[in-house]
Amino acid sequence: MRMRKVPWAVEYLEKSQRLEKEPAKWKGKWHNRLHTKDLHVEIGCGKGQYSLDMAKMYPESGFIAIEKNESASGIAAKKFDEDPAEKKLALIVEDAADLGEWFKEGEVDVIHLNFSDPWPKKRYAKRRLSSDSFIRQYLQVLSDSGRIEMKTDNGALFEYSVLMFLDYGFRLKDFQVDFRKEEHPEDAITEYEAKFIEKGQPIYRAVFQKK
Amino acid sequence: MRMRKVPWAVEYLEKSQRLEKEPAKWKGKWHNRLHTKDLHVEIGCGKGQYSLDMAKMYPESGFIAIEKNESASGIAAKKFDEDPAEKKLALIVEDAADLGEWFKEGEVDVIHLNFSDPWPKKRYAKRRLSSDSFIRQYLQVLSDSGRIEMKTDNGALFEYSVLMFLDYGFRLKDFQVDFRKEEHPEDAITEYEAKFIEKGQPIYRAVFQKK
Ligand SMILES: C[S@@+](CC[C@H](N)C(=O)[O-])C[C@H]1O[C@@H](n2cnc3c(N)ncnc32)[C@H](O)[C@@H]1O
Ligand SMILES: C[S@@+](CC[C@H](N)C(=O)[O-])C[C@H]1O[C@@H](n2cnc3c(N)ncnc32)[C@H](O)[C@@H]1O
Repeated sequence: MRMRKVPWAVEYLEKSQRLEKEPAKWKGKWHNRLHTKDLHVEIGCGKGQYSLDMAKMYPESGFIAIEKNESASGIAAKKFDEDPAEKKLALIVEDAADLGEWFKEGEVDVIHLNFSDPWPKKRYAKRRLSSDSFIRQYLQVLSDSGRIEMKTDNGALFEYSVLMFLDYGFRLKDFQVDFRKEEHPEDAITEYEAKFIEKGQPIYRAVFQKK
Repeated sequence: MRMRKVPWAVEYLEKSQRLEKEPAKWKGKWHNRLHTKDLHVEIGCGKGQYSLDMAKMYPESGFIAIEKNESASGIAAKKFDEDPAEKKLALIVEDAADLGEWFKEGEVDVIHLNFSDPWPKKRYAKRRLSSDSFIRQYLQVLSDSGRIEMKTDNGALFEYSVLMFLDYGFRLKDFQVDFRKEEHPEDAITEYEAKFIEKGQPIYRAVFQKK
């Protein structure tokens, strides 16, 4: 599903307060910058509702939302700027493949992967956010007690990801095959998630603990 | 779902060739008895179709089907007796809680758990075939390269079981949230499974490797 082009997005991003154009500059300093105890990073945040809602629900935590698509991140930037939770939020408009350059070893507490692109064809498997080179960088930037929280509607991506993270030594801490069957007020609903809930599709979820 | 009482079952079981009344007598000797390279044990086999079909598909393997319900196992016994694959089959009509007394350490190669009773209430959790005392016995009777193959329609039982087996040090070797979405001619369909497939419900499956 391609995102429709948002005409004002690029121009808006230029002046957004939340956009961080040189994320590498903040390597090792993100906790200070966001005045936060624990640092959450959402990769592929789309239009940003999840990070925004989570920042409101967890005012002690800081959220860095990463999104490479400029139309989606333009919308996210506008949402962030207009909300009082904004001081706990930062936006990075880049490909997360460079993640390891933006965060110091052990700097990140939680990584969120929400409804990541499934890339079903084997020849594009490297683009999956749970493929080898991404996982190696997660292991590097996550703190020892760090974790990855993943949600998806896509069974094949879920199967692949669970086996991958376990192979890399993560511990499966939590695991649901129909996450929204029960109430989960502790976790915000993403834009994609809302659509799947409406259609009655199950949401798969797993939490992988580094140690 | 209670099984309807089968009037001829108990009487039939008495004379069945496949029934093993004193399983502990065969401890350490099952491979010889079934003239087999590898030993499969199905726990809660119901009417026995799975073990029978698998015994036909894998003529080198021996299958021991365990079922505590006499009506279901009466039907299984009859099916087994009437089929030429019977020599590779044995039936134990007991509660599997005593499993450890029937098999020697490392004697079993594969344990199958198909659509086990979910026992959703916490106070009955001990009856689940993936609760502590069962898993401890599986670890004891399984060979070092042994594995557990599990299928279920029940999401809550699946979640519980995956977390339990991983906690006990099993390795998740294979994992599907919609097993019959793809063709799996290598694995027989159980009686319960056929009903869920017909209703379009997903089948959850996992393979847990001991080492
Ligand atoms: C299917 S959308 C889901 C959006 C949002 N997480 C939600 O649940 O509503 C996946 C998003 O991930 C972004 N994405 C995929 N790979 C990425 C990468 N390597 N770096 C940054 N963003 C990425 C895509 O641009 C897309 O906006
Ligand atoms: C829901 S049925 C599934 C039957 C069959 N496996 C299938 O998939 O069609 C579960 C079966 O497990 C049996 N069972 C449950 N706990 C057992 C135990 N501890 N020992 C032996 N059989 C058990 C029940 O009697 C029942 O027949």
